Amino acid sequence: MPAEPVFGRLALIGAGLIAGSIARRNREQGGLAREVVVTARTPETRARVRELGFADHVAEDPAEAVQGADGVILCVPVGACRSVMERIAPHLAPGTLLSDVGSTKGSVIRDVAPLLPPGVVFVPAHPMAGTEHTGPDSGFASLFEGRYTILTPLEGTPPEAIERVREFWRRCGSMIETMDATTHDKVVAIVSHLPHLIAFTICGTADDLSEETRESVLKFAASGFRDFTRIAASDVAMWRDVFLNNREAVLEMLARFTEDAQAFGRAIRWGQEEFIVDRIARGRKIRRGLIERKQA
Amino acid sequence: MPAEPVFGRLALIGAGLIAGSIARRNREQGGLAREVVVTARTPETRARVRELGFADHVAEDPAEAVQGADGVILCVPVGACRSVMERIAPHLAPGTLLSDVGSTKGSVIRDVAPLLPPGVVFVPAHPMAGTEHTGPDSGFASLFEGRYTILTPLEGTPPEAIERVREFWRRCGSMIETMDATTHDKVVAIVSHLPHLIAFTICGTADDLSEETRESVLKFAASGFRDFTRIAASDVAMWRDVFLNNREAVLEMLARFTEDAQAFGRAIRWGQEEFIVDRIARGRKIRRGLIERKQA
Repeated sequence: MPAEPVFGRLALIGAGLIAGSIARRNREQGGLAREVVVTARTPETRARVRELGFADHVAEDPAEAVQGADGVILCVPVGACRSVMERIAPHLAPGTLLSDVGSTKGSVIRDVAPLLPPGVVFVPAHPMAGTEHTGPDSGFASLFEGRYTILTPLEGTPPEAIERVREFWRRCGSMIETMDATTHDKVVAIVSHLPHLIAFTICGTADDLSEETRESVLKFAASGFRDFTRIAASDVAMWRDVFLNNREAVLEMLARFTEDAQAFGRAIRWGQEEFIVDRIARGRKIRRGLIERKQA
Repeated sequence: MPAEPVFGRLALIGAGLIAGSIARRNREQGGLAREVVVTARTPETRARVRELGFADHVAEDPAEAVQGADGVILCVPVGACRSVMERIAPHLAPGTLLSDVGSTKGSVIRDVAPLLPPGVVFVPAHPMAGTEHTGPDSGFASLFEGRYTILTPLEGTPPEAIERVREFWRRCGSMIETMDATTHDKVVAIVSHLPHLIAFTICGTADDLSEETRESVLKFAASGFRDFTRIAASDVAMWRDVFLNNREAVLEMLARFTEDAQAFGRAIRWGQEEFIVDRIARGRKIRRGLIERKQA
């Protein structure tokens, strides 16, 4: 790891899976920041962060956290970005590099960019890593290894600021890609947001079945349903905000998917073997594509 | 393992994941049959079974396979049960115990029961175990360990025949449950068939996106989509037959699910936070239920 860390004082707003993993990574491998300040909304979480000891300082609130920081990363549910920004904006020194880790980029840019004080550069980022666990205990230093982090820089951003964020995530073990926010939001709508919507939904569908069937469902959950429920165990506030803040893209992908599912159902009803075989074969083809890319 | 095997000569019709796993289990641990005969549709598969050596005999066709067998298990896609049954029925000796491993039970009973010769008892079974792999190379002796096998015996079946099939699957490492075929078909429709339909569909939905977005989808497949594609890599003939042979239950579950997904989409469109939070929380609750049952 190079001698000089990317940041002097790095403030992480939030103490969940992502913030806890960044702080632990720095603790174990260095290279990210000389010191890491973490803050969290509730006294209980802040106390737990102190106990766990992965931060150099635990700040009482976001405004205190960003004091003297040359790097600030918003690690809160995307719906909280605007209010956090309102609280920290007056305290951000010129020259501070601001970033985030939100799963929706259009909404974060909409909420954060207008509040940027002069001299503060914002480089939106989305580390595509996660587990079904949440809270200060859930993070670990290797979370980002081998995973993509997508940057969606705004037009006119100084290249050295973008490069600094690239280097930060590279040192976290991540592979970096850059695209515009609109493309990002469409891609994650299909690869992540829609699968989560489906997983949450099918759990509810099962839960609504008659008492007797529901009992059996829990008992005989085969691999298909088990994989779905793993996804469905994700953080409530994070996912509520994702759906509310990537509305257009999620609804478009849901509409496309629903049409396709209905067509599949119709093929089953009318015994259209060729259609069914074609759909199954396409699933296998995409799977093979993923395996070849070593993302599987 | 008790000294006396469940069967003397056991004929497995088919040489895929399930048949290969039964044969390997008997080879490694004994207790299932004194000898195992395997047959497969194509000369290539039969040659591969000979090479792999997990069967005591490889028969050229189902009629030859069942000669002298006191146990026969149909290990073919459910849509092939009727034609296999037509071929073996004249060769089944009185006293033979017939079973199957199909994922749909109503259709198998409909196709097999009317063709049963006098003195042959049929006990339908469904080992709820599987992987995304298929063919004679895919089986392994521990496939059924800790997994449920559901029996759906017909009315009037001699209890000792049912007990023999229970003992067979117990020795495979399976936990046994008994229910009627209609309940079975509904339960698997929601825990397995609908999740597979969804997984196949979403792969197609992604594949239909514009060239540029599709490239990114493959590149950035986050955990959500990856889990779906694992399911979607399943065997084509098996799943085609499942959908065509559990039509009513799959269509009912698809209709319920689609209503629920549309309601979720409507909540996103209109920003109904409470509804969204409730759905996510239910997903987590079901997940917890599964973990408590150690099925996760």
